[in-house]
Amino acid sequence: MTKAFSIPLRVYIEDTDAGGIVFYVNYLKFMERARTEGMRFLGFGKDHTLNHSSMFVVRSAQISYLRSAELDDELRVSFEPTEVRGAAFTVRQRVYRDDDLLADAVIECVCVSRERQKPVRLASVIRDGLMALMQGV
Amino acid sequence: MTKAFSIPLRVYIEDTDAGGIVFYVNYLKFMERARTEGMRFLGFGKDHTLNHSSMFVVRSAQISYLRSAELDDELRVSFEPTEVRGAAFTVRQRVYRDDDLLADAVIECVCVSRERQKPVRLASVIRDGLMALMQGV
Amino acid sequence: MTKAFSIPLRVYIEDTDAGGIVFYVNYLKFMERARTEGMRFLGFGKDHTLNHSSMFVVRSAQISYLRSAELDDELRVSFEPTEVRGAAFTVRQRVYRDDDLLADAVIECVCVSRERQKPVRLASVIRDGLMALMQGV
Amino acid sequence: MTKAFSIPLRVYIEDTDAGGIVFYVNYLKFMERARTEGMRFLGFGKDHTLNHSSMFVVRSAQISYLRSAELDDELRVSFEPTEVRGAAFTVRQRVYRDDDLLADAVIECVCVSRERQKPVRLASVIRDGLMALMQGV
Repeated sequence: MTKAFSIPLRVYIEDTDAGGIVFYVNYLKFMERARTEGMRFLGFGKDHTLNHSSMFVVRSAQISYLRSAELDDELRVSFEPTEVRGAAFTVRQRVYRDDDLLADAVIECVCVSRERQKPVRLASVIRDGLMALMQGV
Repeated sequence: MTKAFSIPLRVYIEDTDAGGIVFYVNYLKFMERARTEGMRFLGFGKDHTLNHSSMFVVRSAQISYLRSAELDDELRVSFEPTEVRGAAFTVRQRVYRDDDLLADAVIECVCVSRERQKPVRLASVIRDGLMALMQGV
Repeated sequence: MTKAFSIPLRVYIEDTDAGGIVFYVNYLKFMERARTEGMRFLGFGKDHTLNHSSMFVVRSAQISYLRSAELDDELRVSFEPTEVRGAAFTVRQRVYRDDDLLADAVIECVCVSRERQKPVRLASVIRDGLMALMQGV
Repeated sequence: MTKAFSIPLRVYIEDTDAGGIVFYVNYLKFMERARTEGMRFLGFGKDHTLNHSSMFVVRSAQISYLRSAELDDELRVSFEPTEVRGAAFTVRQRVYRDDDLLADAVIECVCVSRERQKPVRLASVIRDGLMALMQGV
């Protein structure tokens, strides 16, 4: 398992579907939680990520599903920035159960204006935080 | 089945849980959809129900679960106003599969200000619409 | 705040709606998580609550919404059994933000057979656990 | 807009988040609904897609978000098979509001055994149906 920032989480009945496994869409929710906590770890709560003038939105996501999680499973979800650009950054996020990799994703986030959803340059403090995490600081 | 306003809906995998049935919490989503369409039928879209100055919120819900719905089921969800007061109204909402009643609820909605969530008197046009539907017009 | 069993939880973007607050339906998910953890605290994981022969389902829920939670809020959700009968038990569950009560519910759960969803008498070990928690042990 | 199979859908409050737009994760739910209806259009309900011996699961998804949908929007979601292999098939799915493309995805589904989630060769009737739709029949 990577040394990236990660959070633990538990699978509840709300996360599952009639196939008896976690509904695949919900892994993206798990990753969003880890991303939120990763940003908070860097010092960025909602004042930075969703405020009156700007917010982060997801521009693209690529996710591969390798194994299924089930009710009551204890998972770990990672948050690993891999690239930072003008208004956007990319993270790799993985979901593990013990050493088993269940889902592996690359997610691109972009900061946009609330008003018209136009890209807004990342605050330098956010850029610096993400870069520091990338470099393993 | 009542003559109240109602909408059809289909159960998708997203609505189910590992018990193999519809996750009970989701019946409240189904009822919200029927309430939204009932309000729209009366002429009230989001300009009336969620705008810059006010919005409707749910103040209380009582729901009984009688039978379970399953994947692919075709359901019908009713919307029946039963009381209209100053800033609030109450609806009875039921979920059916054919003639079987699956869930039966009483939901109280209140109009509040967006800013501080204080009760705001119902617009007379909304009051009149709900009353007309109550009286079977 | 009550001394009942409770869990902390954080509000994520997935929990909110366009009103800028937690979508009221999701408080029932929060309560389900607390109920699951309360049952686990008593020693009952999914082998007891959702297995091949039986499962717990919700038969009714009454919930009052007093104040709204928002993105990033840290909440506490309680689990307090109030009555235990043949195949069913009732819990009171409340959601708090610090000392503010946001939502207050009474939820009735019943153990049913997986096959035909007929009520199944509570295992005595579960009955005893719930009774012990009721009596503040 | 493509001539592929598609379904209309309406955005409800449950689909939105505190950013005031549709929560990006939910576009995958919309696509799942269109996929389910596309399979049903081809004659494959849950007896084919989620039964006692096998089920379809998503193996990977790539999605790009171009514009945001909002509360009350009327959307159209397409289902367009692009490749059929032994146990798997790939679909392109797009979400439109009028002529605006909001989200564009490629989703790979695989048929697996319920028991151990091993790939199971597509029934020839399903393969034929998907191929026919691909060829615009």
